[in-house]
Amino acid sequence: MSYDAAAEDILKLAEQLIARPSVTPEDAGCQTLLGERLATLGFALEPMVFADTTNLWARRGHSGPLFCFAGHTDVVPAGAEHAWRFPPFTPTRDNGYLFGRGAADMKGSLAAMLVATERFVKRNPQHNGSIAFLITSDEEGPFINGTPKVIETLEARNEKIDWCLVGEPSSTTRVGDVVKNGRRGSLSGELTVFGIQGHVAYPHLAENPVHNAAPALAVLATTEWDSGNAAFPPTSFQISNVHAGTGAGNVIPGEFKVSFNFRYSTESTAEHLKERVIAILDAHQLDYALDWKLNGEPFLTAEGDLVTATATAIKQVTGTAPQLSTAGGTSDGRFIAPTGAQVIELGPVNATIHKVNECVAMDDLVQLTDMYEAILEQLLC
Amino acid sequence: MSYDAAAEDILKLAEQLIARPSVTPEDAGCQTLLGERLATLGFALEPMVFADTTNLWARRGHSGPLFCFAGHTDVVPAGAEHAWRFPPFTPTRDNGYLFGRGAADMKGSLAAMLVATERFVKRNPQHNGSIAFLITSDEEGPFINGTPKVIETLEARNEKIDWCLVGEPSSTTRVGDVVKNGRRGSLSGELTVFGIQGHVAYPHLAENPVHNAAPALAVLATTEWDSGNAAFPPTSFQISNVHAGTGAGNVIPGEFKVSFNFRYSTESTAEHLKERVIAILDAHQLDYALDWKLNGEPFLTAEGDLVTATATAIKQVTGTAPQLSTAGGTSDGRFIAPTGAQVIELGPVNATIHKVNECVAMDDLVQLTDMYEAILEQLLC
Repeated sequence: MSYDAAAEDILKLAEQLIARPSVTPEDAGCQTLLGERLATLGFALEPMVFADTTNLWARRGHSGPLFCFAGHTDVVPAGAEHAWRFPPFTPTRDNGYLFGRGAADMKGSLAAMLVATERFVKRNPQHNGSIAFLITSDEEGPFINGTPKVIETLEARNEKIDWCLVGEPSSTTRVGDVVKNGRRGSLSGELTVFGIQGHVAYPHLAENPVHNAAPALAVLATTEWDSGNAAFPPTSFQISNVHAGTGAGNVIPGEFKVSFNFRYSTESTAEHLKERVIAILDAHQLDYALDWKLNGEPFLTAEGDLVTATATAIKQVTGTAPQLSTAGGTSDGRFIAPTGAQVIELGPVNATIHKVNECVAMDDLVQLTDMYEAILEQLLC
Repeated sequence: MSYDAAAEDILKLAEQLIARPSVTPEDAGCQTLLGERLATLGFALEPMVFADTTNLWARRGHSGPLFCFAGHTDVVPAGAEHAWRFPPFTPTRDNGYLFGRGAADMKGSLAAMLVATERFVKRNPQHNGSIAFLITSDEEGPFINGTPKVIETLEARNEKIDWCLVGEPSSTTRVGDVVKNGRRGSLSGELTVFGIQGHVAYPHLAENPVHNAAPALAVLATTEWDSGNAAFPPTSFQISNVHAGTGAGNVIPGEFKVSFNFRYSTESTAEHLKERVIAILDAHQLDYALDWKLNGEPFLTAEGDLVTATATAIKQVTGTAPQLSTAGGTSDGRFIAPTGAQVIELGPVNATIHKVNECVAMDDLVQLTDMYEAILEQLLC
């Protein structure tokens, strides 16, 4: 199969990015490559390095409204390299697919964003408003020195994003079939239930925290936290790790540690979930300590110019309207939405992300570029 | 306080044993010391070394009935040495107590057994039946190459113990207040509950084994297995170790491992307990694997010559009859009782065993020696 020059432009850039082994939090020169082409288009570049993380804020135009492409150059590790059909950092075309770590998550999207912007600016050098790129190398890592710090910088100088398109691989079977227009909140808890350590032969001198906690965990596991709503599935509670015991078979443990996580809809709040968990633990008269971490509030871009433009662009390219969804994991959108921006996520099919033999359909990248360009045209012309 | 020559004989031997740092499975020369004195009395010595374990079988006499003193020369580690008032392997007399690792568990008992036997043989060189010593260096360890292997050897040649006195520290506040005339059984289980690993953001694609198992653990923890009986407290179930999770906070675990232990009375059998556990797991429709280990069947020497002789001897020395008990941990008695032997345990106060500053009241060792001698007199004269 051969591709025309326009398609080759996208694929070659995607390949150049994949060939840079930017395992999180490394950028491996990806942002320099993108920055050079953005500078040629008239973007003002503002690299923002925080600790181990490389970020790029690039903007073309001074007035509002501000449309922003958000993405990341870092990738997850290759995993079992011997299980890959092709070396993970050697981009390889095979049977209509481009293989390599980051092909779908999300170097393919970065190439599509950049080429779409080049085409758009060439045709509309005097476009309305501004276009920006917010690129980080810390989306797959601890998300401390990436998007949150860039947003903090922008907020401090009152630079507001109106519309943000995150290039995360949102699609399930073909590009554009699903757009994420929100994400559930994520709330984690670290529970320690205290007992009294002792010998199993003398249980009356001990207090087994696993025995005491088991009924409470059973209640937590079966509680219906909410029913979700039109935009969100019901809130989900999952225990991720439990540990108790010294390793010896004859010792009643003194402590029982339980880690859990809520993915929650806009029908619940973090505060209310905390109260309900505490009420269940207290109802079982447990002696415990509990530390919480709020990883992100839920957000939703229910309607507005960005959703409309995205749906229209997809319909225009594929002939089918996308499904709007808030399911799945967290993304950097959670850090951008609280500024008041409309946020949506549109990217390639996510079937192979974080796995061996990660790949993207080359035709999908061509279509994705068309979609991105059509969105720019609707919003900034 | 000064001791007479008879008392000094016991204390000096106890001190010689404590000074040998025989941390399990080491014997550190203790059995050689005991063996030399037994040989002088006319005992035939039969050292039995199995792998890392030193055992001694010594017998005086060829006819039945056979009375056997059983004990161990190994000790548990000293633990936090800086917390000891005196160096753990430097026997030290202080305020009526003899301090050192093994003073109560059970080098004091070994000294008492040996001196009692010396006195008894001197007065009754032509005693009835036979006297034996079954000494191991693997009672505090995995109990594989100690008493079980010696008993196996004796059984193979049809050498039967009629009465066995184990020198484990059975007493609670003064020597002889409690005699153990049996022990609960010990049955362990290693349970693995299977689920399907997945991302916490996609719980419908996973199956959380901790969630599934929690209600079953709650039932196991609150089940009344039996009510015990006159000789045994109720059967007790205790979870000793649990583990699930990859350590990552966003992964639903694929497996949940639970270790548990029964200490069970003669009102239950290992087979019946297994059936009941399986019924509870099955009632909760769990997918699981379960490995069992039977550490020891319960045993009981309810009545007979040995119990009578022991109670009479204690009454004679202290003026008070002992309480018979089957509570507490396992001992090597569980390996001897199944041969048909009557088995009791009589030794010093156990308040400090396995702890720092282990000690034994020196007067108690004197009384314990008198008790052991009086038992021999009742049974073999």
